[in-house]
Amino acid sequence: MRKLCALIFPGFELLDLFGPLEMFGLLRGEFELSLIAEEPGPVRSNQGVCAHADESYLAAPAPDVLLIPGGKGTRTEVRNERLLAWIGETADRAEYVLTVCTGSALLAKTGQLDDRQATTNKLAFDWVASQGPKVHWQREARWVEDGRFITSSGVSAGMDMALGAIALMHGREVAEKVALWSEYHWNDDPTLDPFARRAGLV
Amino acid sequence: MRKLCALIFPGFELLDLFGPLEMFGLLRGEFELSLIAEEPGPVRSNQGVCAHADESYLAAPAPDVLLIPGGKGTRTEVRNERLLAWIGETADRAEYVLTVCTGSALLAKTGQLDDRQATTNKLAFDWVASQGPKVHWQREARWVEDGRFITSSGVSAGMDMALGAIALMHGREVAEKVALWSEYHWNDDPTLDPFARRAGLV
Repeated sequence: MRKLCALIFPGFELLDLFGPLEMFGLLRGEFELSLIAEEPGPVRSNQGVCAHADESYLAAPAPDVLLIPGGKGTRTEVRNERLLAWIGETADRAEYVLTVCTGSALLAKTGQLDDRQATTNKLAFDWVASQGPKVHWQREARWVEDGRFITSSGVSAGMDMALGAIALMHGREVAEKVALWSEYHWNDDPTLDPFARRAGLV
Repeated sequence: MRKLCALIFPGFELLDLFGPLEMFGLLRGEFELSLIAEEPGPVRSNQGVCAHADESYLAAPAPDVLLIPGGKGTRTEVRNERLLAWIGETADRAEYVLTVCTGSALLAKTGQLDDRQATTNKLAFDWVASQGPKVHWQREARWVEDGRFITSSGVSAGMDMALGAIALMHGREVAEKVALWSEYHWNDDPTLDPFARRAGLV
Protein backbone atom coordinates (compact mmCIF):
# COMPACT_ATOMS: atom_id res chain seq x y z
CA MET A 1 0.00 0.00 0.00
CA ARG A 2 1.43 3.36 -1.06
CA LYS A 3 0.44 6.64 0.57
CA LEU A 4 -0.36 9.15 -2.20
CA CYS A 5 -0.70 12.79 -1.17
CA ALA A 6 -1.99 15.41 -3.54
CA LEU A 7 -1.18 19.03 -2.85
CA ILE A 8 -3.94 21.59 -3.30
CA PHE A 9 -3.83 25.39 -3.17
CA PRO A 10 -6.26 28.18 -4.09
CA GLY A 11 -6.81 28.18 -7.86
CA PHE A 12 -5.79 24.55 -8.48
CA GLU A 13 -7.23 23.02 -11.67
CA LEU A 14 -9.99 20.48 -10.96
CA LEU A 15 -9.17 17.85 -13.55
CA ASP A 16 -5.40 18.08 -13.02
CA LEU A 17 -6.12 16.80 -9.52
CA PHE A 18 -9.14 14.55 -9.77
CA GLY A 19 -8.35 12.84 -13.10
CA PRO A 20 -5.25 11.13 -11.68
CA LEU A 21 -6.91 10.56 -8.28
CA GLU A 22 -9.79 8.72 -10.02
CA MET A 23 -7.30 6.32 -11.61
CA PHE A 24 -5.21 5.68 -8.48
CA GLY A 25 -8.34 5.54 -6.32
CA LEU A 26 -9.80 2.71 -8.37
CA LEU A 27 -6.94 0.55 -7.07
CA ARG A 28 -8.25 0.21 -3.57
CA GLY A 29 -5.73 -1.54 -1.37
CA GLU A 30 -2.80 -0.31 -3.46
CA PHE A 31 -3.07 3.45 -2.89
CA GLU A 32 -4.31 5.45 0.08
CA LEU A 33 -5.20 8.95 -1.11
CA SER A 34 -5.22 12.21 0.79
CA LEU A 35 -5.45 15.91 0.00
CA ILE A 36 -3.07 18.29 1.74
CA ALA A 37 -2.93 22.07 1.73
CA GLU A 38 -1.48 24.91 3.77
CA GLU A 39 -4.36 24.39 6.22
CA PRO A 40 -6.99 21.65 6.48
CA GLY A 41 -10.47 22.54 5.18
CA PRO A 42 -11.99 23.80 1.94
CA VAL A 43 -9.70 25.01 -0.85
CA ARG A 44 -11.28 26.76 -3.84
CA SER A 45 -10.36 25.51 -7.31
CA ASN A 46 -9.84 27.52 -10.48
CA GLN A 47 -13.37 26.44 -11.48
CA GLY A 48 -14.95 27.84 -8.31
CA VAL A 49 -15.95 24.68 -6.42
CA CYS A 50 -13.95 23.48 -3.41
CA ALA A 51 -12.03 20.36 -2.51
CA HIS A 52 -11.49 19.63 1.18
CA ALA A 53 -7.93 19.21 2.46
CA ASP A 54 -7.57 16.43 5.03
CA GLU A 55 -4.55 18.00 6.70
CA SER A 56 -1.86 20.63 6.55
CA TYR A 57 1.25 19.72 4.61
CA LEU A 58 3.19 21.02 7.59
CA ALA A 59 1.73 18.19 9.72
CA ALA A 60 1.24 15.39 7.15
CA PRO A 61 3.56 12.36 7.18
CA ALA A 62 5.88 11.99 4.18
CA PRO A 63 4.04 10.40 1.24
CA ASP A 64 5.33 7.61 -1.00
CA VAL A 65 3.84 9.39 -4.00
CA LEU A 66 3.45 13.16 -4.26
CA LEU A 67 1.01 14.57 -6.84
CA ILE A 68 1.11 18.27 -7.75
CA PRO A 69 -1.68 19.64 -9.96
CA GLY A 70 -1.50 22.89 -11.91
CA GLY A 71 -3.94 25.74 -12.33
CA LYS A 72 -3.93 29.53 -12.25
CA GLY A 73 -2.97 29.37 -8.57
CA THR A 74 0.55 28.21 -9.48
CA ARG A 75 1.30 31.79 -10.60
CA THR A 76 0.99 32.85 -6.95
CA GLU A 77 2.46 29.71 -5.37
CA VAL A 78 5.79 29.95 -7.26
CA ARG A 79 6.49 32.82 -4.84
CA ASN A 80 5.41 30.87 -1.72
CA GLU A 81 8.80 30.07 -0.17
CA ARG A 82 7.40 27.91 2.63
CA LEU A 83 5.45 25.76 0.17
CA LEU A 84 8.44 25.45 -2.19
CA ALA A 85 10.67 24.37 0.70
CA TRP A 86 8.15 21.68 1.65
CA ILE A 87 7.81 20.48 -1.97
CA GLY A 88 11.61 20.28 -2.32
CA GLU A 89 12.07 18.24 0.86
CA THR A 90 9.10 15.98 0.20
CA ALA A 91 10.04 15.36 -3.44
CA ASP A 92 13.56 14.53 -2.31
CA ARG A 93 12.29 11.65 -0.16
CA ALA A 94 9.28 10.39 -2.17
CA GLU A 95 9.36 7.21 -4.21
CA TYR A 96 7.56 9.00 -7.07
CA VAL A 97 6.75 12.63 -7.78
CA LEU A 98 4.01 13.36 -10.32
CA THR A 99 3.03 16.73 -11.72
CA VAL A 100 0.23 17.75 -14.05
CA CYS A 101 0.09 20.84 -16.25
CA THR A 102 1.57 23.97 -14.60
CA GLY A 103 2.18 21.91 -11.44
CA SER A 104 5.55 21.29 -13.14
CA ALA A 105 6.42 24.94 -12.48
CA LEU A 106 6.23 24.45 -8.70
CA LEU A 107 8.45 21.37 -8.81
CA ALA A 108 10.89 23.00 -11.27
CA LYS A 109 11.21 26.08 -9.04
CA THR A 110 12.60 23.89 -6.22
CA GLY A 111 15.46 22.70 -8.43
CA GLN A 112 14.37 19.05 -8.13
CA LEU A 113 13.92 18.80 -11.93
CA ASP A 114 17.33 20.30 -12.78
CA ASP A 115 19.15 18.30 -15.49
CA ARG A 116 16.08 16.08 -15.91
CA GLN A 117 13.61 15.75 -18.77
CA ALA A 118 10.13 17.10 -18.07
CA THR A 119 7.06 18.53 -19.77
CA THR A 120 4.07 20.72 -18.96
CA ASN A 121 0.95 22.41 -20.34
CA LYS A 122 1.34 23.41 -23.98
CA LEU A 123 -0.53 26.72 -23.66
CA ALA A 124 1.61 27.93 -20.74
CA PHE A 125 4.86 26.32 -21.83
CA ASP A 126 7.17 29.31 -21.87
CA TRP A 127 6.12 30.57 -18.44
CA VAL A 128 6.61 27.15 -16.87
CA ALA A 129 9.97 26.67 -18.61
CA SER A 130 11.14 30.03 -17.22
CA GLN A 131 10.63 28.67 -13.67
CA GLY A 132 13.28 25.98 -14.24
CA PRO A 133 15.95 27.13 -16.71
CA LYS A 134 18.13 24.05 -16.02
CA VAL A 135 15.35 21.56 -16.82
CA HIS A 136 15.40 19.77 -20.19
CA TRP A 137 11.87 20.76 -21.18
CA GLN A 138 10.23 18.51 -23.77
CA ARG A 139 8.01 20.53 -26.09
CA GLU A 140 6.21 17.53 -27.61
CA ALA A 141 5.20 14.87 -25.06
CA ARG A 142 1.95 13.73 -23.45
CA TRP A 143 3.98 12.85 -20.39
CA VAL A 144 7.67 12.32 -19.52
CA GLU A 145 9.20 9.79 -17.12
CA ASP A 146 12.66 10.57 -15.80
CA GLY A 147 13.47 8.26 -12.93
CA ARG A 148 11.21 9.03 -9.98
CA PHE A 149 9.84 12.13 -11.67
CA ILE A 150 6.85 11.92 -14.00
CA THR A 151 5.54 15.17 -15.45
CA SER A 152 2.56 15.55 -17.74
CA SER A 153 1.19 17.96 -20.27
CA GLY A 154 -2.00 20.00 -19.70
CA VAL A 155 -5.06 19.02 -17.64
CA SER A 156 -6.37 15.83 -19.32
CA ALA A 157 -2.85 14.49 -19.88
CA GLY A 158 -2.73 13.85 -16.14
CA MET A 159 -5.04 10.87 -16.58
CA ASP A 160 -2.81 9.35 -19.25
CA MET A 161 0.25 9.95 -17.06
CA ALA A 162 -1.48 8.40 -14.03
CA LEU A 163 -2.20 5.24 -16.02
CA GLY A 164 1.43 5.27 -17.18
CA ALA A 165 2.56 5.54 -13.54
CA ILE A 166 0.25 2.67 -12.56
CA ALA A 167 1.75 0.58 -15.38
CA LEU A 168 5.21 1.39 -14.02
CA MET A 169 4.29 0.37 -10.47
CA HIS A 170 1.86 -2.51 -11.10
CA GLY A 171 2.27 -3.56 -14.72
CA ARG A 172 0.48 -2.66 -17.92
CA GLU A 173 -2.35 -5.12 -17.42
CA VAL A 174 -3.44 -3.40 -14.21
CA ALA A 175 -3.36 0.02 -15.91
CA GLU A 176 -5.55 -1.32 -18.71
CA LYS A 177 -8.05 -2.67 -16.17
CA VAL A 178 -8.29 0.76 -14.52
CA ALA A 179 -8.91 2.35 -17.94
CA LEU A 180 -11.67 -0.20 -18.59
CA TRP A 181 -13.34 0.37 -15.20
CA SER A 182 -13.36 4.12 -15.80
CA GLU A 183 -14.41 3.68 -19.47
CA TYR A 184 -11.39 5.80 -20.38
CA HIS A 185 -9.77 5.86 -23.82
CA TRP A 186 -6.18 5.79 -22.60
CA ASN A 187 -3.79 7.78 -24.81
CA ASP A 188 -1.05 5.37 -23.88
CA ASP A 189 1.82 6.64 -26.04
CA PRO A 190 3.69 9.31 -24.04
CA THR A 191 5.35 10.65 -27.20
CA LEU A 192 2.09 11.35 -29.05
CA ASP A 193 1.12 14.97 -28.41
CA PRO A 194 -0.97 16.72 -31.08
CA PHE A 195 -1.52 19.64 -28.70
CA ALA A 196 2.15 20.67 -29.03
CA ARG A 197 1.61 21.32 -32.73
CA ARG A 198 -1.72 23.06 -32.15
CA ALA A 199 0.01 25.38 -29.69
CA GLY A 200 2.75 26.13 -32.21
CA LEU A 201 5.50 24.59 -30.05
CA VAL A 202 6.83 22.29 -32.79
CA MET B 1 -24.90 32.94 -17.25
CA ARG B 2 -26.35 29.59 -16.22
CA LYS B 3 -26.30 28.33 -12.63
CA LEU B 4 -24.99 24.74 -12.68
CA CYS B 5 -25.42 22.73 -9.48
CA ALA B 6 -23.78 19.37 -9.02
CA LEU B 7 -25.20 17.02 -6.42
CA ILE B 8 -22.75 15.15 -4.19
CA PHE B 9 -23.35 12.38 -1.66
CA PRO B 10 -21.09 9.98 0.28
CA GLY B 11 -19.43 7.58 -2.15
CA PHE B 12 -19.76 9.76 -5.28
CA GLU B 13 -17.25 8.99 -8.05
CA LEU B 14 -14.56 11.67 -8.37
CA LEU B 15 -14.21 11.86 -12.14
CA ASP B 16 -17.98 11.59 -12.76
CA LEU B 17 -18.21 14.91 -10.97
CA PHE B 18 -15.01 16.78 -11.68
CA GLY B 19 -14.54 15.78 -15.34
CA PRO B 20 -17.70 17.62 -16.43
CA LEU B 21 -17.10 20.48 -13.95
CA GLU B 22 -13.65 21.04 -15.48
CA MET B 23 -15.23 21.48 -18.91
CA PHE B 24 -18.08 23.78 -17.80
CA GLY B 25 -15.76 25.66 -15.43
CA LEU B 26 -13.41 26.62 -18.26
CA LEU B 27 -16.27 28.72 -19.64
CA ARG B 28 -16.07 31.43 -17.04
CA GLY B 29 -18.88 33.89 -17.44
CA GLU B 30 -21.17 31.26 -18.97
CA PHE B 31 -21.56 28.85 -16.04
CA GLU B 32 -21.52 29.46 -12.31
CA LEU B 33 -20.72 26.16 -10.58
CA SER B 34 -21.68 24.98 -7.12
CA LEU B 35 -21.64 21.73 -5.18
CA ILE B 36 -24.71 20.81 -3.14
CA ALA B 37 -25.30 17.95 -0.71
CA GLU B 38 -27.63 17.01 2.10
CA GLU B 39 -25.60 19.34 4.34
CA PRO B 40 -22.86 21.87 3.54
CA GLY B 41 -19.29 20.76 4.29
CA PRO B 42 -17.00 17.88 3.33
CA VAL B 43 -18.46 14.88 1.49
CA ARG B 44 -16.26 11.81 1.07
CA SER B 45 -15.90 10.35 -2.45
CA ASN B 46 -15.68 6.72 -3.48
CA GLN B 47 -11.91 7.27 -3.79
CA GLY B 48 -11.55 8.51 -0.21
CA VAL B 49 -10.82 12.21 -0.66
CA CYS B 50 -13.48 14.85 0.02
CA ALA B 51 -15.21 17.54 -1.98
CA HIS B 52 -16.75 20.43 -0.08
CA ALA B 53 -20.46 21.16 -0.55
CA ASP B 54 -21.25 24.89 -0.71
CA GLU B 55 -24.80 24.47 0.56
CA SER B 56 -27.62 22.07 1.37
CA TYR B 57 -29.85 21.12 -1.53
CA LEU B 58 -32.75 21.88 0.79
CA ALA B 59 -31.68 25.55 0.86
CA ALA B 60 -30.12 26.01 -2.59
CA PRO B 61 -31.94 28.03 -5.28
CA ALA B 62 -33.19 26.05 -8.30
CA PRO B 63 -30.37 25.54 -10.81
CA ASP B 64 -30.56 26.00 -14.58
CA VAL B 65 -28.44 22.90 -15.05
CA LEU B 66 -28.44 19.94 -12.65
CA LEU B 67 -25.51 17.49 -12.75
CA ILE B 68 -25.76 14.11 -10.99
CA PRO B 69 -22.61 11.97 -10.77
CA GLY B 70 -22.58 8.25 -10.03
CA GLY B 71 -20.48 6.13 -7.72
CA LYS B 72 -20.96 3.34 -5.19
CA GLY B 73 -22.99 5.73 -3.03
CA THR B 74 -25.90 5.61 -5.50
CA ARG B 75 -26.69 2.11 -4.16
CA THR B 76 -27.64 3.77 -0.86
CA GLU B 77 -29.13 6.97 -2.28
CA VAL B 78 -31.72 5.17 -4.45
CA ARG B 79 -33.50 4.54 -1.11
CA ASN B 80 -33.17 8.15 0.10
CA GLU B 81 -36.76 9.37 -0.37
CA ARG B 82 -36.03 12.97 0.58
CA LEU B 83 -33.19 13.19 -1.94
CA LEU B 84 -35.24 11.54 -4.69
CA ALA B 85 -38.11 13.97 -4.09
CA TRP B 86 -35.70 16.89 -4.41
CA ILE B 87 -34.12 15.46 -7.59
CA GLY B 88 -37.58 14.93 -9.11
CA GLU B 89 -38.76 18.49 -8.40
CA THR B 90 -35.46 20.09 -9.43
CA ALA B 91 -35.18 18.05 -12.64
CA ASP B 92 -38.75 19.01 -13.47
CA ARG B 93 -37.86 22.72 -13.49
CA ALA B 94 -34.26 22.69 -14.77
CA GLU B 95 -33.34 23.72 -18.30
CA TYR B 96 -30.98 20.74 -18.57
CA VAL B 97 -30.42 17.64 -16.43
CA LEU B 98 -27.14 15.76 -16.87
CA THR B 99 -26.18 12.44 -15.33
CA VAL B 100 -22.93 10.49 -15.43
CA CYS B 101 -22.51 6.75 -14.87
CA THR B 102 -24.78 5.32 -12.14
CA GLY B 103 -26.09 8.84 -11.48
CA SER B 104 -28.67 7.80 -14.10
CA ALA B 105 -30.12 5.40 -11.50
CA LEU B 106 -31.04 8.28 -9.18
CA LEU B 107 -32.75 10.24 -11.94
CA ALA B 108 -34.48 7.12 -13.31
CA LYS B 109 -35.82 6.26 -9.87
CA THR B 110 -37.74 9.58 -9.76
CA GLY B 111 -39.65 8.67 -12.95
CA GLN B 112 -38.26 11.72 -14.82
CA LEU B 113 -36.65 9.48 -17.45
CA ASP B 114 -39.79 7.40 -18.09
CA ASP B 115 -40.47 6.91 -21.82
CA ARG B 116 -37.18 8.64 -22.62
CA GLN B 117 -33.93 7.29 -24.08
CA ALA B 118 -31.01 7.16 -21.66
CA THR B 119 -27.74 5.34 -20.95
CA THR B 120 -25.43 4.58 -18.04
CA ASN B 121 -22.25 2.77 -16.92
CA LYS B 122 -21.63 -0.39 -18.93
CA LEU B 123 -20.35 -2.43 -15.97
CA ALA B 124 -23.41 -1.69 -13.80
CA PHE B 125 -25.96 -1.57 -16.61
CA ASP B 126 -28.49 -4.12 -15.37
CA TRP B 127 -28.69 -2.68 -11.87
CA VAL B 128 -29.23 0.86 -13.16
CA ALA B 129 -31.82 -0.32 -15.70
CA SER B 130 -33.74 -2.05 -12.90
CA GLN B 131 -34.18 1.36 -11.19
CA GLY B 132 -36.20 2.68 -14.15
CA PRO B 133 -38.11 -0.11 -15.91
CA LYS B 134 -40.02 2.39 -18.12
CA VAL B 135 -36.84 4.05 -19.45
CA HIS B 136 -35.67 3.16 -22.98
CA TRP B 137 -32.14 2.20 -21.94
CA GLN B 138 -29.52 2.38 -24.70
CA ARG B 139 -26.96 -0.39 -24.30
CA GLU B 140 -24.44 1.06 -26.76
CA ALA B 141 -23.94 4.84 -26.44
CA ARG B 142 -21.22 7.13 -25.08
CA TRP B 143 -23.99 9.56 -24.16
CA VAL B 144 -27.66 10.08 -25.03
CA GLU B 145 -29.55 13.36 -25.51
CA ASP B 146 -33.32 13.24 -25.12
CA GLY B 147 -34.69 16.75 -24.89
CA ARG B 148 -33.54 18.38 -21.66
CA PHE B 149 -32.09 15.11 -20.38
CA ILE B 150 -28.52 14.10 -21.23
CA THR B 151 -27.23 10.87 -19.71
CA SER B 152 -23.76 9.42 -20.12
CA SER B 153 -21.97 6.13 -19.89
CA GLY B 154 -19.38 5.35 -17.18
CA VAL B 155 -17.00 7.79 -15.45
CA SER B 156 -14.86 9.24 -18.30
CA ALA B 157 -17.86 9.46 -20.64
CA GLY B 158 -19.05 12.37 -18.50
CA MET B 159 -16.37 14.59 -20.06
CA ASP B 160 -17.48 13.71 -23.59
CA MET B 161 -21.10 14.34 -22.61
CA ALA B 162 -20.22 17.68 -21.00
CA LEU B 163 -18.57 18.83 -24.23
CA GLY B 164 -21.67 17.62 -26.11
CA ALA B 165 -23.86 19.67 -23.76
CA ILE B 166 -21.63 22.72 -24.26
CA ALA B 167 -21.94 22.25 -28.04
CA LEU B 168 -25.73 22.14 -27.61
CA MET B 169 -25.82 25.34 -25.53
CA HIS B 170 -22.99 27.36 -27.11
CA GLY B 171 -22.16 25.73 -30.45
CA ARG B 172 -19.62 23.18 -31.52
CA GLU B 173 -16.79 25.67 -31.93
CA VAL B 174 -16.93 26.61 -28.25
CA ALA B 175 -16.90 22.92 -27.21
CA GLU B 176 -13.82 22.36 -29.37
CA LYS B 177 -12.07 25.31 -27.74
CA VAL B 178 -12.74 23.87 -24.27
CA ALA B 179 -11.31 20.51 -25.40
CA LEU B 180 -8.20 22.32 -26.67
CA TRP B 181 -7.72 24.31 -23.45
CA SER B 182 -7.95 21.12 -21.40
CA GLU B 183 -5.78 19.16 -23.91
CA TYR B 184 -8.61 16.63 -24.06
CA HIS B 185 -9.10 14.14 -26.91
CA TRP B 186 -12.87 14.57 -27.21
CA ASN B 187 -14.67 11.36 -28.15
CA ASP B 188 -17.28 13.44 -29.94
CA ASP B 189 -19.48 10.73 -31.49
CA PRO B 190 -22.16 9.83 -28.91
CA THR B 191 -22.95 6.56 -30.73
CA LEU B 192 -19.38 5.22 -30.56
CA ASP B 193 -19.07 3.05 -27.45
CA PRO B 194 -16.51 0.23 -27.52
CA PHE B 195 -17.05 -0.33 -23.79
CA ALA B 196 -20.54 -1.75 -24.46
CA ARG B 197 -18.98 -4.60 -26.44
CA ARG B 198 -16.21 -5.12 -23.89
CA ALA B 199 -18.86 -5.45 -21.17
CA GLY B 200 -20.78 -7.99 -23.28
CA LEU B 201 -23.84 -5.72 -23.62
CA VAL B 202 -24.00 -5.96 -27.43
